[in-house]
Amino acid sequence: MGTCINHPDRETPYLCMKHKIYLCEECLHCKDPNVYCKHRPSCPIWFMSKRQEGWAAEDQQEAAAATVKVSFLPDGQIVDVPTNTTLLEAARLADVHVNASCNGKGSCGKCKLVVTDGTVNAPPTPLLSDGEKAKGYVLACQSQVTGDVTVSVPEEVIQRKLKIAGMGQTVTEEVHGLVADIDPMLKTIPLTLSPPTLADSVSDLDRLNRGLKKEGCDVARLNVGLKVMRQLAEAVRQDNWNITASVIRRRCANEILEVRPGNGASPSLGLAIDVGTTTIVVYLVDMQNGTVIAATAGHNRQADCGDDVINRIVCAEKNGVKKLSRMALATINDLIGEALDSAGAKADAIHNVVISGNTTMAHLLLQIEPRYIRRDPYIPTVSDFPILKAGEIGLKANRIAAVFIMPGPASYVGGDIVSGILYTGFHREEPITLFIDVGTNGEIVLGNHEWLMTAACSAGPAFEGGGIRWGMRAEEGAIEKVTIDPDSYEPQLTTVGDAPARGICGSGMIDLIAELLKTGIIDRSGRFNKEINNPRIREIGDELAYVLAFADQTPMQEDIIFAASDLKNLVYSKGAVYAGFTTLLNEAGMDFSMVERVIITGGFGQYLNIEQAVAIGLLPDIAREKFAYMGNSSIKGAYMALMSNSYRQEAKEICNRMTYVDFSSNPRYMDEFTSALFLPHTNLEAFPSVAG
Amino acid sequence: MGTCINHPDRETPYLCMKHKIYLCEECLHCKDPNVYCKHRPSCPIWFMSKRQEGWAAEDQQEAAAATVKVSFLPDGQIVDVPTNTTLLEAARLADVHVNASCNGKGSCGKCKLVVTDGTVNAPPTPLLSDGEKAKGYVLACQSQVTGDVTVSVPEEVIQRKLKIAGMGQTVTEEVHGLVADIDPMLKTIPLTLSPPTLADSVSDLDRLNRGLKKEGCDVARLNVGLKVMRQLAEAVRQDNWNITASVIRRRCANEILEVRPGNGASPSLGLAIDVGTTTIVVYLVDMQNGTVIAATAGHNRQADCGDDVINRIVCAEKNGVKKLSRMALATINDLIGEALDSAGAKADAIHNVVISGNTTMAHLLLQIEPRYIRRDPYIPTVSDFPILKAGEIGLKANRIAAVFIMPGPASYVGGDIVSGILYTGFHREEPITLFIDVGTNGEIVLGNHEWLMTAACSAGPAFEGGGIRWGMRAEEGAIEKVTIDPDSYEPQLTTVGDAPARGICGSGMIDLIAELLKTGIIDRSGRFNKEINNPRIREIGDELAYVLAFADQTPMQEDIIFAASDLKNLVYSKGAVYAGFTTLLNEAGMDFSMVERVIITGGFGQYLNIEQAVAIGLLPDIAREKFAYMGNSSIKGAYMALMSNSYRQEAKEICNRMTYVDFSSNPRYMDEFTSALFLPHTNLEAFPSVAG
Repeated sequence: MGTCINHPDRETPYLCMKHKIYLCEECLHCKDPNVYCKHRPSCPIWFMSKRQEGWAAEDQQEAAAATVKVSFLPDGQIVDVPTNTTLLEAARLADVHVNASCNGKGSCGKCKLVVTDGTVNAPPTPLLSDGEKAKGYVLACQSQVTGDVTVSVPEEVIQRKLKIAGMGQTVTEEVHGLVADIDPMLKTIPLTLSPPTLADSVSDLDRLNRGLKKEGCDVARLNVGLKVMRQLAEAVRQDNWNITASVIRRRCANEILEVRPGNGASPSLGLAIDVGTTTIVVYLVDMQNGTVIAATAGHNRQADCGDDVINRIVCAEKNGVKKLSRMALATINDLIGEALDSAGAKADAIHNVVISGNTTMAHLLLQIEPRYIRRDPYIPTVSDFPILKAGEIGLKANRIAAVFIMPGPASYVGGDIVSGILYTGFHREEPITLFIDVGTNGEIVLGNHEWLMTAACSAGPAFEGGGIRWGMRAEEGAIEKVTIDPDSYEPQLTTVGDAPARGICGSGMIDLIAELLKTGIIDRSGRFNKEINNPRIREIGDELAYVLAFADQTPMQEDIIFAASDLKNLVYSKGAVYAGFTTLLNEAGMDFSMVERVIITGGFGQYLNIEQAVAIGLLPDIAREKFAYMGNSSIKGAYMALMSNSYRQEAKEICNRMTYVDFSSNPRYMDEFTSALFLPHTNLEAFPSVAG
Repeated sequence: MGTCINHPDRETPYLCMKHKIYLCEECLHCKDPNVYCKHRPSCPIWFMSKRQEGWAAEDQQEAAAATVKVSFLPDGQIVDVPTNTTLLEAARLADVHVNASCNGKGSCGKCKLVVTDGTVNAPPTPLLSDGEKAKGYVLACQSQVTGDVTVSVPEEVIQRKLKIAGMGQTVTEEVHGLVADIDPMLKTIPLTLSPPTLADSVSDLDRLNRGLKKEGCDVARLNVGLKVMRQLAEAVRQDNWNITASVIRRRCANEILEVRPGNGASPSLGLAIDVGTTTIVVYLVDMQNGTVIAATAGHNRQADCGDDVINRIVCAEKNGVKKLSRMALATINDLIGEALDSAGAKADAIHNVVISGNTTMAHLLLQIEPRYIRRDPYIPTVSDFPILKAGEIGLKANRIAAVFIMPGPASYVGGDIVSGILYTGFHREEPITLFIDVGTNGEIVLGNHEWLMTAACSAGPAFEGGGIRWGMRAEEGAIEKVTIDPDSYEPQLTTVGDAPARGICGSGMIDLIAELLKTGIIDRSGRFNKEINNPRIREIGDELAYVLAFADQTPMQEDIIFAASDLKNLVYSKGAVYAGFTTLLNEAGMDFSMVERVIITGGFGQYLNIEQAVAIGLLPDIAREKFAYMGNSSIKGAYMALMSNSYRQEAKEICNRMTYVDFSSNPRYMDEFTSALFLPHTNLEAFPSVAG
C-alpha cells in the first residue's frame, strides 16, 4: 500500500512497477491526462500491481492480461500498452506521427485514425462527419483501447514532404551578396610551426599560440581546455609540427577547441536553421564562399504536442522539457542528415551553426525551463544566449561546432523576429516600417533606424491550419488560391503542386473569405446567407458551411468544407493581428498614414494576395505598393549571422534596441480587437477601397 | 595463436585474457619490465592461455596453478599474481607502499622487504648487509615469487606521518600580512533580485546579470553555460529571488558557474597546495580573512615510481600518465580530507585552489603528456595553464572550484620556483639575489627587479635521501645534526622528534661530511683515511664506511652507516649545485662578490647549518649574513596567489621575465662540475674561510 501521487490523503494498493508511484482507483481509471498518473504518458511498459514487493508470476500474468497490442498502418509499428490507454498515447509510444493540434484536449479534431481491426472505446464527437464515422474514423486522443486493435493513419493526415521555396542554387541566388566578409565563430586554422630547439624551447602551447598570433588571433584572450592540453604534445608532433587548430570566438575571450595533426585543406560547412513552431528549415552552407549547398525543410515533430507554443510549454511541463527537445532535435537532425546526404558531406565538417527560433523554441531545444513564458508576467529564462557547442545541444554536427542562438527581446517576440529584421534591414533605414510575421504566432515590429517597438498578438494557428476543420499548411494538395463565381457559387481552386485538394492553407483561406464576402455568401459579421440555395452551401451539424471540393474530387473521398466555426476562428486571428497594428501604432503615437512600408514575412506559403488580405481586414487599406512579402526572413537572417560576426553583433544590437509592448495588460488592445471582428472592420472608413 | 606484442614477427599461443594481447615464450619469462608484457604491471588478474576462444576448465586450473598468493604484513593485504611476478609489482597491485627510489632498476637498495613465510627467487645483491640477509631481507624489485609467500614491510621502511613546520595557527602567523586585498578567482556573490513585473520583464539571466553588475561584475565579459541556464528559472524562484551566484574570473572573460537559491552566509574555503616530487603540503584557508585553518603534509604516492621526475616520466610512459595522476591525487585528496576533518568543514565549501609544483608534477597531475620534458630539447606541453575546475582534475573540492596552476618557465624550472620567488619577493627589489631550491631537483635563480635568469642542475635526490644507503627525508628519527669528537671519533646526533635514529636526512649529511672532513676521517677528495683504527670506521664490502649508530641503538637493530659510495653520491650532488651557481653567474657576467643575498629554500628540513654547507662547498664562501633560509617558499607563494588576483598576475609576470639557461648543452657547466667534486672545491682560493 502507498499514497496516491495525485491524492496524498488516499491509500492505494496500485503501484506502477516502472515508476514506483501509487495511483488510487479513481486516478487509475480517470481519463483526464492532467489528473491521472502523470508519469503514464511517457511510460512505455507500465504495470500496476497489488503487491509492492517482488513480481509474482500471477501478477505478471495479470499485467499481461491487462496489456493490449496496437498496430499502426501503413508502416506496421506495433506497441504494447495497458488497456484504457488512448490511441494518441499509443501512437506517441510507437513513434507514429499523429497531428494533435490541441495536444489531446479533444477540441481540434485533427488526430484522426481509422480503426481497421478491433474496436476502441470512444465517446461520440461532432468533430467527425457521418461519412468518416462510417469508415471507422476515430479521434486518437479520445479513443481508449480495450483489446488488440489495428489502426491506419488516413491518407489526408499523412505528412507530405515539405518543399521550401528555392532549394540549393535558387537559395544561393537569393542570399547572394548579403554577406561581404566571411567571418565564422569557429575557425579552423592550418599552421606550420617551427620545431623546438634548445635555443627555442617554449612549451608546445606557447608555440601554438605564437603560430596563432601570426595568423591574427588575439592570443592574450585565448583560453584552452584540459582536453586539448592533454592531446597537444602528440597532435603537434604527429605530422612534424603541421597542425590545424580550431579556435572559437566567444564573448570577449576566445578558446582553442581542438588541435589536429596535419594542415591540409578540409571542407568547413555551416548550418543556418530556422526552428519554427510548425516548420523547420535547414540551409547547409559552404563556409569558404557562402554557397548554400543544400536546403531542406520539415515539420517540427513537436507538433505532436500541439500547434502553438502554449501547448508545447504545457506539454514540456507535463512530460519534461527533454522530450520536447528530443522531438525538435529529431526533426532538425533528420533535415541536417538529408542535407549532408544530398551534398555528399559528413557531419564532422560542420563547424558553425546559427539557430533562429522564437523564444519558446529556443528554450525547448536547449532544455531550458520554459514554464514562466506562459505565466504572468511572462518571463523567459534566457533572451541573449552565449555561444554553445553542437555536442552539448545534441546537433548532428562536429561536437565542437559553435552554435549561435538568435537573441530575442521577449517571451513572445523571439530570435526569429530579430533574424527577420536583420535580413530585411529596415532597422538601418529611415522609412517607418511595419514588420509583421504571421506564422503560428503573430509578431509585429514598428520602427526605423532610430527606434523599434514590438508586440505579440495571440493570432492563434488558424493561418497555418490550426483550429480550421480542413486547414493545413502549405503542403502538396493545399488550396492556396480561391476564386468563386458570383453567379454559380462554383469555386476555382489552385493547389500547391497542382495536386488534388487535401485541405486549405493560409493564403487560400484569405482568398476564400474575401470571395465569400464578395459573392455575398457571408456578410460583414461573418454570418452565412441562409437564403442561398446551392449545393455548395450546406448545413453541417448546426452550422452552415461552404463546400470547396466534393468528396469525389478528393483523395480521401470526403467533402472539403469551410464552416461558420472555421470562419469565426479565422476572423478572430485576423482581428488579433489587425488590432495589434492599431494598438502598437497608437502606443507610438502614430497611425497608418505614417507607415511608409509594410513587410510581411512568415508562413503564408508562396502566395499572399495583398488585395484579398486588405479586403478581409487582415492588412490595412493603404497604398498597395507599400506592401512587400519577403517569405521566410528568419532563415535568411540566420544565414547572414552564420557568415558574419558583424551581423551576429548587429542581431544583438537589434534585440537590445527593441521595446516590447505587452498587449495582455493593455485595455486598448481588447477594444481594437473587438472592432476588428467585422469584415473588413467595424469602422469602414478605415477601409475606403473596400467600402467603395 | 597470435603475434607477440613485443616481436611482431613471432607467432605465439600465449594470450593475456584480460588485455587480449599475445606474448612470445621469451617475453613471457623475461624479467626486464621494459621488454616483457608492457601491460602486465598494471594488470591485477592477468592469465595466459593457449586457447584464444573460450576459457576451458583445464585452462582455468592451469592458470590457477600458475598463480600464487602474496601476503603483506603488518597490514594483511593479499594479492594473487602469476609466478615470476616481482614483489615490487605485487606490492603495487596490493596497494602497499614500498619505497622504490630507482623505480625497480635494482640500484638503490631501498625497496627492502622481509620474507617471513615461503621463498622468493632473488639474485645476490651487495645492497643488503649480511645481517639483513640473515633476517630474510630481500629487494622487492629483484625478487620473483615462485609460490605463496608472506612478506613484511620492515620497521625502517614504514613511512612516518609528516609534520610540517608550523601547523594551523603558526602558519597563519607566518603568512599574516602577506596579502592586502582578498580577491579570489571564484566568488560566491549573494544577491537579492527584484521580482519581475509586466513593466520589468527582462529574462531571468538578464535580471541576474543586472544584479551582478550592481555588485561590480563586468557583465559585458560574463559567459554562462548551458547547465546554469537550465537550472536558472527554478533557482531564482525557489527562495523568492534571493540567490547566490558563483562567478569565476578567467583570462579576460568571466563565467557564471552556479546559481543557488538563498543568499545566506556560507563559508568559502581555499586550498594552497605544494605538489613536491617528494612531499605534498596542503593549506586549508578561510577565504574571508586569510586564516590558515589547517595544514597537512604527506609523501607523494608517486614515490613508488621513483624518486626523481625522470623516473616518474619513465613510469608515466610505461603505465600511462593517468596512473601517476591518480597517485598524486590520492595523496592530495587524503591531505585535503585530513585538513577538512580537522577543521570540521566540507569539501563543497572549497571554491578556490592554487597548485604549485614543478613542471613534471603539474603535467602528471593534469594528465598532460610529460614525455618530451625528458627528451632533447626538453619541451613541456604547457607552461602557462588556464584556470581549471576542481571537478575536471579530480580534486576533493567543490566541482566548480577554480584551480590556478602556478606557471613555470621551463621543463626543469617550474611553478614551484615561480611561487617561491613570489613569496620571497626579491624580483621586486634591487639587490642581486641568488635563489636556490635544493629539493629532489636543484633549481637556481639569479637576478633582481630588473632581470631574472634561471637554470636547473641535476643535483639528484641525495639531499632528500635518494641514493644514500641510510638516507631518508626529514621525518621522525632522521639524523639532522651531527658533530664528531676529533679524538674519539664518537658522533653526537640530533634526530627529528628526538626519536631513535632511523637514518640521516639532508642537513644531517651536510653536517656529517663537514665533520668527517674536519676530523680527518675523510680527505678533500672524499677518500676515507685507512689508517684510523676505530670501531666507528669499518669496512663494508669493498669500501670503508663511518658508523653513525650501532645496531643496538636503532629500532631496526641494524648499523646506520655512511659509506664511501654514499659520500660520492652526495659530493656529486653538491658539486652539481655549486657548478650551477658558478655557471649561471658566469652567464650573467658576474661572480659571487656581486651577489648581495642568497635565499635558500627547499627540503633541508628545519635546520641547515650554513657554516657546514660552506665547509663542504655546497654554498659559496661569502659573508654569512647574506644567507637566508626561507623554508618551503612554494606553498607560501601558492597561498598568496590563492588570496589575491594581483599576485596571480605577478606570478605570470615573474614566469615571463625568467630567462632559462640550459646546462645540458653548456660545456662550461661540466668543467665547473668537475672542479666542484673536491671538498670544498678544487680551487681553495674560492673558500678562504674554509682554507684558513
